[in-house]
Amino acid sequence: MRVGFIGVGNMGGPMARNLAAAGHEVAVHDLVPELVAACVAAGAAAAGSARAAVADAEVVVSMLPASKHVHGLYVEEGLLDVIDPDATVVDCSTIAPATARTVAAEAAERGIDMLDAPVSGGTAGAANATLTFMVGGDGAVLERVRPLLDQMGANVFHAGGRGAGQTAKVCNNMLLAAQMTATAEALALGVAEGLDPATLSAIMQRSSGGNWPLNVYNPWPGVMEGVPASRGYEGGFLVDLMIKDLELALDAASASGTPVAMGSLARNLYRLHRRVNDAGGLDFSSIQLLVEPGAGQN
Amino acid sequence: MRVGFIGVGNMGGPMARNLAAAGHEVAVHDLVPELVAACVAAGAAAAGSARAAVADAEVVVSMLPASKHVHGLYVEEGLLDVIDPDATVVDCSTIAPATARTVAAEAAERGIDMLDAPVSGGTAGAANATLTFMVGGDGAVLERVRPLLDQMGANVFHAGGRGAGQTAKVCNNMLLAAQMTATAEALALGVAEGLDPATLSAIMQRSSGGNWPLNVYNPWPGVMEGVPASRGYEGGFLVDLMIKDLELALDAASASGTPVAMGSLARNLYRLHRRVNDAGGLDFSSIQLLVEPGAGQN
Amino acid sequence: MRVGFIGVGNMGGPMARNLAAAGHEVAVHDLVPELVAACVAAGAAAAGSARAAVADAEVVVSMLPASKHVHGLYVEEGLLDVIDPDATVVDCSTIAPATARTVAAEAAERGIDMLDAPVSGGTAGAANATLTFMVGGDGAVLERVRPLLDQMGANVFHAGGRGAGQTAKVCNNMLLAAQMTATAEALALGVAEGLDPATLSAIMQRSSGGNWPLNVYNPWPGVMEGVPASRGYEGGFLVDLMIKDLELALDAASASGTPVAMGSLARNLYRLHRRVNDAGGLDFSSIQLLVEPGAGQN
Amino acid sequence: MRVGFIGVGNMGGPMARNLAAAGHEVAVHDLVPELVAACVAAGAAAAGSARAAVADAEVVVSMLPASKHVHGLYVEEGLLDVIDPDATVVDCSTIAPATARTVAAEAAERGIDMLDAPVSGGTAGAANATLTFMVGGDGAVLERVRPLLDQMGANVFHAGGRGAGQTAKVCNNMLLAAQMTATAEALALGVAEGLDPATLSAIMQRSSGGNWPLNVYNPWPGVMEGVPASRGYEGGFLVDLMIKDLELALDAASASGTPVAMGSLARNLYRLHRRVNDAGGLDFSSIQLLVEPGAGQN
Repeated sequence: MRVGFIGVGNMGGPMARNLAAAGHEVAVHDLVPELVAACVAAGAAAAGSARAAVADAEVVVSMLPASKHVHGLYVEEGLLDVIDPDATVVDCSTIAPATARTVAAEAAERGIDMLDAPVSGGTAGAANATLTFMVGGDGAVLERVRPLLDQMGANVFHAGGRGAGQTAKVCNNMLLAAQMTATAEALALGVAEGLDPATLSAIMQRSSGGNWPLNVYNPWPGVMEGVPASRGYEGGFLVDLMIKDLELALDAASASGTPVAMGSLARNLYRLHRRVNDAGGLDFSSIQLLVEPGAGQN
Repeated sequence: MRVGFIGVGNMGGPMARNLAAAGHEVAVHDLVPELVAACVAAGAAAAGSARAAVADAEVVVSMLPASKHVHGLYVEEGLLDVIDPDATVVDCSTIAPATARTVAAEAAERGIDMLDAPVSGGTAGAANATLTFMVGGDGAVLERVRPLLDQMGANVFHAGGRGAGQTAKVCNNMLLAAQMTATAEALALGVAEGLDPATLSAIMQRSSGGNWPLNVYNPWPGVMEGVPASRGYEGGFLVDLMIKDLELALDAASASGTPVAMGSLARNLYRLHRRVNDAGGLDFSSIQLLVEPGAGQN
Repeated sequence: MRVGFIGVGNMGGPMARNLAAAGHEVAVHDLVPELVAACVAAGAAAAGSARAAVADAEVVVSMLPASKHVHGLYVEEGLLDVIDPDATVVDCSTIAPATARTVAAEAAERGIDMLDAPVSGGTAGAANATLTFMVGGDGAVLERVRPLLDQMGANVFHAGGRGAGQTAKVCNNMLLAAQMTATAEALALGVAEGLDPATLSAIMQRSSGGNWPLNVYNPWPGVMEGVPASRGYEGGFLVDLMIKDLELALDAASASGTPVAMGSLARNLYRLHRRVNDAGGLDFSSIQLLVEPGAGQN
Repeated sequence: MRVGFIGVGNMGGPMARNLAAAGHEVAVHDLVPELVAACVAAGAAAAGSARAAVADAEVVVSMLPASKHVHGLYVEEGLLDVIDPDATVVDCSTIAPATARTVAAEAAERGIDMLDAPVSGGTAGAANATLTFMVGGDGAVLERVRPLLDQMGANVFHAGGRGAGQTAKVCNNMLLAAQMTATAEALALGVAEGLDPATLSAIMQRSSGGNWPLNVYNPWPGVMEGVPASRGYEGGFLVDLMIKDLELALDAASASGTPVAMGSLARNLYRLHRRVNDAGGLDFSSIQLLVEPGAGQN
């Protein structure tokens, strides 16, 4: 297949290379030449502009930082006007559900099928093609591009109509922020009462407190090998990005007036954490340090 | 083995019957004659008093409502003074960790080994012998009674020294309350944005939002068969009992000054729910109705 | 002075009439003819359009529902293009500080001085000319129109540069929502412990718990005469409007990453209140009913 | 009058000296000899023990750190057994309402009238006799000792029956913690948006955001002269003591099941502040530093 791929940074880069490795003709574009070069080295072709990247494409994939970039590229800069109406557009950026719906509607006016398909799984998932895609849009359109998504990820969920992929992602991440923070509190309380954090983690993991952080991403330093908590909270999913996703979730909640007291509190605790601990560049499991600054040292 | 069992209500009753069914000589006592009779019908012997129940026992098991009953029975009413020093006491009540430590220390002064062993798994777990025991106290003592616990449950965890079982339980339940509430918020937000609650649940369950409620105890009516949410929130683990456990957790947090903002907020949301929805007697997953009163009707 | 007044509803209507009563030539415009007629009866002139209202004006005053209306009127519909560059524009709407800055910058490009001047004091304050104006923009410009503001209100504060009036208003209202809710909690706790709500109110009012709600807007029914709490929470400042103002405050907090945990919680409690008690149309002091549904009946 | 005064530390010391200065015969007792000596130098008499201090007293006043000291002194150590049944006991300690009720009931069994009379106003209020007394117990008994209270304070409120003084105090302080924290958030938000903290404070103080912190205890450094915020948060009412009072309030809320989400969040933010900023010994207005670590430096 001929794929136009726009935005080949930390996430988009390995995704595009996986498509190239699978034998597709991938034309990539990015504002940073080095990022393009890394894809060319892996078999992709460099496109001089976004328009050039999509000119001939059967599928257009984009991975951009935020709502304004997606709306800017497709609508304001007019990329939708030059995409073949028979092509399918798959935007993998994490953006506001409302923006996803708007841009998809603009695409539809031009006869173009567009899906929102944000991912989870991080840079490791992108490199290893184990991403999870949460897809919004027409189910039949998804089936057409599913083989392509399968080459970049391990799970593909159809969340619903336009924007539903974004909604699923922000709901999931709001829940994640809340349960990571609550897990950090439970561990801090147990340790303050004399329990071993690994023992307590093992018990809760197999009880009704079980959750994804306890399974694979324990926030207490030293409990689990290979997670950010055991390497000074370096790498992983940054506090700054979690806060960005929480803003998307809470903006959606504002629009519908949905009470999300726990999600809002998690957001504010993350803001406090970033501010008092200068933690924007740490992994989000470092919220443990807000609750117990001495975690792992005692 | 000769077992003295005190407190044979919703939880203790089936536990005692399971021990009798396994061939132990079980002498039961309860203030309610009907509860005793139900155990006698299953092969236990009726004891006229707590003292009579423990008189000859190798193992004493108790399952009582709250801290004051446990301290009252063993210390104030002097039951520890009549238990054989070679016997082992296993208190399965959910009480304050501090009280568990106090009573175990009183037992130790009389040469009696005592374990705190609160359970999770509810009345179904008690009936089916699939309870989880979280045990505090000496590990060697636990090994002596482990066969007995295995006949009442499916998992036995050694949490640490005296009181550690209680601490593990209250930490777990604080985390449970927080993640149940956060799950209810995520579902409400997704549905408000047009997603199907079952689809969203399936996506989050297999993503980083995955947790015990999504796995086996979904709070949205109709998403999952056989859970309280799908039968009007009847039965299950009552809001009143969750609030009681949260009080134990937050009292422990007060004693150590541990910040537990998420746990505290969950407690207050449960109090609001009980008050505005008169929900004390509903299952705790009914917190969904506080966040979205129309859940399941739309 | 010749004044063009746009938006003469619950708030703008009495404000425009006060200006007319003070002898100014006031040309009013509103989409609802009845609202215009009420001003004409009080001495104002009806303008057939917003453009007609401002055509000849030395001062333009607007009182509109939300950011989009203000931006729509002045920028998108081009009203700024027809206002005399020597005129001063005073927008009294409560809108996002960022929008206020944007529109004022657009005005400045056309040589027009513009102030943001949201008010507090409610419909009674508008009728009695006892409003408080919080003004953002150039101080010298404010001095030029201060006499006019004095005829509509009792206090005029210069908050700072463009948008500062809006910022002051949303900060104030976020604080108000938090302290109203906290006051409702303190009263509920005291009453639950057997205190008389009026006695407790009197004590806290003159102690370190003293605040505006205790002084003039007590949320417990029957404590204070003439407030919404003593007439079934009818009238006053609606829950829906408080939630709208909280959204503006929390959007601003998101933009700067400011932790506002208390403000966020207040917003979510108001959302819960609106949802479970169908309270959007009640006065915002009715948050008392979320905390204690039986307030005033016991 | 002959007064026995027990506990003459930071608060009790100046109170006892004010009584001595007013001409009463004051016998003081404290475990710290230096504290007693400071009172003797001001005209009081040293008593060798609590029993000696109350032996001959018409009024007994106590000012002790916590519930356990008050219960310990009067009940467990039996001081009530040696107080003249015609004497009146006034406990000025801040303790749990439930403990105050228990001890007053024990006193009543011995025919002794006892009042709970916690104070607000701090060490300055104690020194200058400007304290506020919040009194629980029989109104007629209060009238008997009111002249004495007037010599130690400026305001005397009768809150209700036994324990009501304590309840009023903890309700007030819970509200105070919430509105101090919310004020800190509003100031941080305004400053982040470019406002001057003094200007914003002045506006909110005279608007519906007005409260005691803005009137006399502004938390932003430099806004107000002579407050802890303007001297590095030294002195004043310590974070540790505020947390202690919040525990009393929230324990009472637990007993009655009252939802106090805002009060609970304030408590947890104070705990976070104490932990991450090592702030237990700072004035409670230093919560500003949790919200905006750079407050006053920008």
